[in-house]
Order: sequence, then structure tokens, then C-alpha cells
Amino acid sequence: MTTEQTGFRIGTLAIVGVGLIGGSFALALKKAGVVNEVIGVGRRPATLEHAQALGVIDRAASFEEAAGCADLIMISAPVGAFEAIFAALAPNLNPRARITDGGSTKGNVVAAARRALGTKVAQFIPAHPVAGSHESGPQAARADLYLNRQVVICPLAENQSNDVSYVRDAWLACGADLKTLDVTVHDEVLASISHLPHWLASLYVAHVAKQSNAPTCLAMAGAGFGDFSRIAQGSEEMWRDIFAANREAMLRQISDLHTLLNQAELALRTDNMAWIENMLSESAQIRRQWGEGVFSEGKWHDPA
Amino acid sequence: MTTEQTGFRIGTLAIVGVGLIGGSFALALKKAGVVNEVIGVGRRPATLEHAQALGVIDRAASFEEAAGCADLIMISAPVGAFEAIFAALAPNLNPRARITDGGSTKGNVVAAARRALGTKVAQFIPAHPVAGSHESGPQAARADLYLNRQVVICPLAENQSNDVSYVRDAWLACGADLKTLDVTVHDEVLASISHLPHWLASLYVAHVAKQSNAPTCLAMAGAGFGDFSRIAQGSEEMWRDIFAANREAMLRQISDLHTLLNQAELALRTDNMAWIENMLSESAQIRRQWGEGVFSEGKWHDPA
Repeated sequence: MTTEQTGFRIGTLAIVGVGLIGGSFALALKKAGVVNEVIGVGRRPATLEHAQALGVIDRAASFEEAAGCADLIMISAPVGAFEAIFAALAPNLNPRARITDGGSTKGNVVAAARRALGTKVAQFIPAHPVAGSHESGPQAARADLYLNRQVVICPLAENQSNDVSYVRDAWLACGADLKTLDVTVHDEVLASISHLPHWLASLYVAHVAKQSNAPTCLAMAGAGFGDFSRIAQGSEEMWRDIFAANREAMLRQISDLHTLLNQAELALRTDNMAWIENMLSESAQIRRQWGEGVFSEGKWHDPA
Repeated sequence: MTTEQTGFRIGTLAIVGVGLIGGSFALALKKAGVVNEVIGVGRRPATLEHAQALGVIDRAASFEEAAGCADLIMISAPVGAFEAIFAALAPNLNPRARITDGGSTKGNVVAAARRALGTKVAQFIPAHPVAGSHESGPQAARADLYLNRQVVICPLAENQSNDVSYVRDAWLACGADLKTLDVTVHDEVLASISHLPHWLASLYVAHVAKQSNAPTCLAMAGAGFGDFSRIAQGSEEMWRDIFAANREAMLRQISDLHTLLNQAELALRTDNMAWIENMLSESAQIRRQWGEGVFSEGKWHDPA
């Protein structure tokens, strides 16, 4: 069922943090024609002015005003900033408002929401768009960022089903491919397929940079290096917060990975090339299957 | 000086291994109009027939014939196969023939050439095109694979300067951006910027695949996962040989990297987020500078 069929509308949309993620949410809903007014809230007046000049938001507003008048509030900020944002919204939060977010971790965001919002946590329907870019700021926002991209909704036990439907409709209006995951499962899965690759790509670049022949290495590096390390360009503030927020799951991932890395080092040291060829063969096959969409089509079961 | 200006010509070009690398070398030289005849040599008759049907080679030939008549012999095979190939060429190798190659490691290839060719090693001018694709076979070959891509020439003490010039002219006719490196330096640099990323990408995919929730993880994985793991699709035979051939440099790289990974794990475990943010910031800056070409333009000094 499309949003046209359901008659889905948002009166006032408030975007807290008008960068790539929040700005693209606003532009997508404007393009879908389902929002009356978009107001922007943030720490930096210059960013809000810039977002308004770009047409990402219609005007800037304070936390108090947004909490008082918005029908939907979308929070897009480094996940370490969420508790302060919830606390700033809580006192004036109108009972009609639903809150969603674009945070890359969910366990710590939900814990912050429970602390800062109290019983009003029922109005918060967490989401994570598995989309993005190494670009940032309102100038990077685009109406099609979420088109056919996966967005995970992590409903809470406290949520009302009509509020969950409202937030789902908003993401569907952005063109998103919706999934539903439990908060804990979300954080484990994302640690594995998003946070660990970023960790490794960044540490790999740091490793290359520490070498005495680093300039020659970087001058010789080609397309494989470029692909492998592309994600290392992401915002350090955002990723520091993600690693801190998802520490337990990350430490489990790192521990398992290090065991495998040590096995592989031993195989190379002892000339066990059969082990290495077998590993390479299995990885190549899985990565090729992933590229062919085998896992997205056949093996995913959305419990929603 | 272009090849037109120098009047550079190849009478008979022999390609040993008519896949992506060897086939693209043949197509590039055909397109440049500098070669009279291209003959193909290889283990699999079906591959040679396919290459001939595609116009990559003009006809198939034996090792004996190629060694006897070729002006330039290009070897493109898994680096573990080079010693047998040199040995098959050695008995009939005509004194006019120059040999070059597309192998990803140079130390073991040069050692194999010295063993199999004896004093005729003077006719071997090693090369490494830092170009490629996860595709393979003659159908993947294209005339522009080397256009503006880096090709490293690793001349040997035994080489005559006119033979080095001849091989350089052939790669220049392919449109390559030529660099010169010592064999040992080549292998250290490539371990760092090509072999280690492949090792990590493959082990990372193996790690994800071992998890109990692997299907959910792979279903949720997005563009960052895709970029980071793209190189893991490479040929397991080729990469097994590369890791075995470059074992010592790889083990040094792995040891240094593991030290850094363990430092990072400790920083996360002890909540030393300043260390992590600093690392992320430095890596992001270096990777962005690399993308802007800072290292290729400013800091590379080709000793040739």
C-alpha cells in the first residue's frame, strides 16, 4: 500500500541535526509531497541557515518549539549526543509527536531515551537507515538517499502500533526498503557488517601511514586499496560515538576476528597454503553470492 | 617520446597465459598498431581457442615455437607457475627474445627466472601492472586495461639497457604510467597496499560467514560492506600463490598490523576514546588526501 493510498500526511516535521541523514529525510518527504512544513533544530546557527538556503528546511526552530508543535521529530546526530537531545525535547514534548532517528546504534540510544524521556519513550520509534556516504552536512543531503535502501525499524515494547505504523509510513514515503529487528540483534548485526569494516579500514590506513616507506606505498596504491579503504574517510566524531555506543558487540566481533587472523598468520608462517586457499575460496564464493543478491532475496526473513 | 616517434615495433608477440592480464597486453599492443603477430601459449587448449575467437591472439603455439620465434614474450600466470614456464621456454629461447611478465610479486619470480634461465635471465625484464579486476579469462581482456595505470618495471643487474628500453616501450604503447622499483622494495610496497588488503578483506568475509547470524548479516550489508570486501572476490589460486611468494614481507606486514589492532582493542576496552578518535581522524585525513591525488603527484620520485 502506497502512502497516497493511505493518505499519510505529516503536518510539521522537525529535523534535529540537518546533515546528510536528517537533511535527506526532509528532502525525501518534501519530494513525496507528504509534509506541510519542515523545521530544523541544531547546535550551529550557520548550518541551519545553510540548510534553509538549500531548501532542506523551511525555517530554524528551538528545541522547545519543535517539541511543542512537531508531528514527527527525526533525530540525526552522533549517537553520543542523543541523551542531551532527548532531554532538551522532553519537557515540552506534545503527546501527538512521534520521534524517530537515524542513529547507527540502537541499544545505547534506546537506553538514553528511557532515561531522558521516562514514560514518553513510548513516542520514540527507533530506526536506522543503512545508507549513507562519507560526505556530510546539509549540502550532501539528497531526496533519493533512502530510495530502495534498507531502513531497520526497532520497535519498543512501549510503542503503540499506530505510532509504529506512522513512522513506517514516513520511511516508506522516502522509498526505503523496511526491515524490523530487535534492538540487541540490530547492534550485533551492525557491528559485524558496518562497524567492524570501518574499524579495520581505518586501522589499515593507520598501519600504512606508520610505515617508513608510506609515501611510496600511497603513491603506488591502486583501485583495490581505494575500494577497501573508502569507508575510512567517515567522520571521526560520528564513528568514535558508534564504537563507544556499541562497545560490547564490537569487542565480541574483534575478539572473534583476531582469533581468525591469528589462525591465518600461523597458516602462512607454517606454509599451510591449503588452509589459506580454502579460506580464500569460501570468502570469494560468499562475496560473489552477496553481489548477486543471493542473501537479500533468499535468506532474509523480516519478522515484521 | 611516443612509440610512433621511436618507430617501436614488435614482430612476434607471445602471450603465455591469455587471461585478463596477458590478453589485455595483447589487445593494447594490437590497438596501438605496433605488433605484427600475436601467438598464445597455455595449458588449456579451450582457453587458447576462445582467445583466438575473441581476436585476443592470432593463433596458438607451443612453448618451443614461442621461445624460438618471439621477439617479446609476456608471461601472465599465477606466480607459482612461473618456474615451470621459464623452464619450458629456456631450451629454445632465441637470443633476440625479451621476456616480461604481469606477476604480482617479483622476488620469487626473479629467483625462479635465475634458476630456470641461467645466464639467459638477462633477457627477462620483470614488470608488474598495478591494474586488474576481479574478473578473469580472455573474455575479461580489454585494450584499455593499462591506460594511465601504473606499471612497475623492476630491471635486473643483468639486463642490457636497450632490452629494458624495448620492454618499457611495449608497456608505454599500452598507455601505462611507468614506475621503476627495486625488486625487494616492490614486494614490500605491494605487500602493504595490495596483498594485505586482500588478506584482510578475505578474512573479514570468512569471519562474517562463520557467525551464527550470518544470513541476517549478509542480508543487511550495504555499500560500505560491498566496497570493503570487493577484492575478496579474486581468484583463490592467484592469491594463494601471491601470499606464498611474498611470505616474508606479508608476515612483517601482518605482525605490525596485529600490534596496532591489539592496541586499538585495548583502547576500546579501556574506554580510551581519545586514542580512537585520533586514529580515526588521521586515517580519514590520509585517505582523503590519497583520493585527491596528493601522494601520486607530490611525493613520488621515480628513480628511473
